Amino acid sequence: MAIGPEAPAAPQRIVDAVLFDTFGTVVDWKSGVADAVEAIAYRYGFEVDAAEFALRWRARYQLSLEPIRSGAREFLTLDELHRENLIATAEEMGLPIERIEAADVEWLNRAWHRLDGWPDSVPGLTELKRHFIIGPLSNGHLALLTNMAKHAGLPWDVIIGSDVTRCYKPDRDAYLGAARLLDLPPHRVMLCAAHNSDLAAARSAGLRTAFVARPQEYGTTQQSDLHPTEAWDVIARDIRDLATQLRDHITA
Amino acid sequence: MAIGPEAPAAPQRIVDAVLFDTFGTVVDWKSGVADAVEAIAYRYGFEVDAAEFALRWRARYQLSLEPIRSGAREFLTLDELHRENLIATAEEMGLPIERIEAADVEWLNRAWHRLDGWPDSVPGLTELKRHFIIGPLSNGHLALLTNMAKHAGLPWDVIIGSDVTRCYKPDRDAYLGAARLLDLPPHRVMLCAAHNSDLAAARSAGLRTAFVARPQEYGTTQQSDLHPTEAWDVIARDIRDLATQLRDHITA
Repeated sequence: MAIGPEAPAAPQRIVDAVLFDTFGTVVDWKSGVADAVEAIAYRYGFEVDAAEFALRWRARYQLSLEPIRSGAREFLTLDELHRENLIATAEEMGLPIERIEAADVEWLNRAWHRLDGWPDSVPGLTELKRHFIIGPLSNGHLALLTNMAKHAGLPWDVIIGSDVTRCYKPDRDAYLGAARLLDLPPHRVMLCAAHNSDLAAARSAGLRTAFVARPQEYGTTQQSDLHPTEAWDVIARDIRDLATQLRDHITA
Repeated sequence: MAIGPEAPAAPQRIVDAVLFDTFGTVVDWKSGVADAVEAIAYRYGFEVDAAEFALRWRARYQLSLEPIRSGAREFLTLDELHRENLIATAEEMGLPIERIEAADVEWLNRAWHRLDGWPDSVPGLTELKRHFIIGPLSNGHLALLTNMAKHAGLPWDVIIGSDVTRCYKPDRDAYLGAARLLDLPPHRVMLCAAHNSDLAAARSAGLRTAFVARPQEYGTTQQSDLHPTEAWDVIARDIRDLATQLRDHITA
């Protein structure tokens, strides 16, 4: 950035913006979605393993993005894909979704808008916001991410939804599109994620990378992403630790 | 919004989102731009009426949007248009801009990223944020609006730049595009502006409207927009008063 005649020298920061994967990295989708499934099941008197339902609903997610990434299908938001996947999951698990009122199906589908942050998310983001532009770099769309931020108190500076960049991670243009909208070169943007594959795609697009482990994202038997698989720029215990490490970097 | 089985009844709010015109309505562009012009003039030893320079620079703004609105020119961000208009204004006022270093021209051009809020802006927005989604609905682009928010401490939930909707107010699609991104019907979105023409276009697109007077936007001799010209949904003294009126509406 150009420094004007009266401006003090800018602090040496590793990047200007720190963007976050959201589902799993910032918010605990499994608990939030399972709670909503549980509430619906209770209301209608259905028997269902709500945690298993949440896992299976989520398992269809990456698969449903494929035809959009390849261009075989037009762009659809996560609300639309989640709704299709909800119906398929209900059929798979024998939940009679046709007996649930439309408004309740919609409420259930929007469970993805009402997820809570991990305990370190809000304090960590609040500290990071003092020094960096912070925002989600998520496959969620703008409305979902905005509602999620209001619900969970996530103090984003800016929200770049998949409906704004019109592409889904790990497409290279999802990362580059976010940097372009912020008018920053890719190396001045960091992605923080709990998923090594997301970070690999971000690094290949030229972004800086930060790994936080979320060993409970899929529950107690999780096998994937327990550890960093590459030497990411920052490896942190959680988002609060990330804030501490990046602050130390500024003041060092 | 659908109310789920365990959710409490939502409060009766007039709208879900309150969006703001920014230049003039939320931030004081004239003072901020004049200060930057003054700083450059001092550094280079130039004589210039900085307040007059700011007014003339701004005066070229609406004109430069016309060919983009009509489709005669491809979409350009305000940074690009401001740069063209800066050079034209410098020529008009006899400021030898060719003697200013490129980095300083860029710093001057980005004065529009570093504007301060009016005294009521941050407290009013902070109060509104408790009950509503708040964001700019501005002709600024996402990077400019993000930098402005960081500089002025504007606590936006979401930033919808003109480079996201790809159109400039008062084009109908600028208003409708913002509502669509928030996944809200137009009547659940309110535009707050200090300019009657902006509100007229928003109303015609189906948005709710709130007027705040900014009688000092153009300085002490301002003639336009001193009063509301229509019966807008809310007429407020300033953004803090708007927050009070909308809060009273909720609790009434």
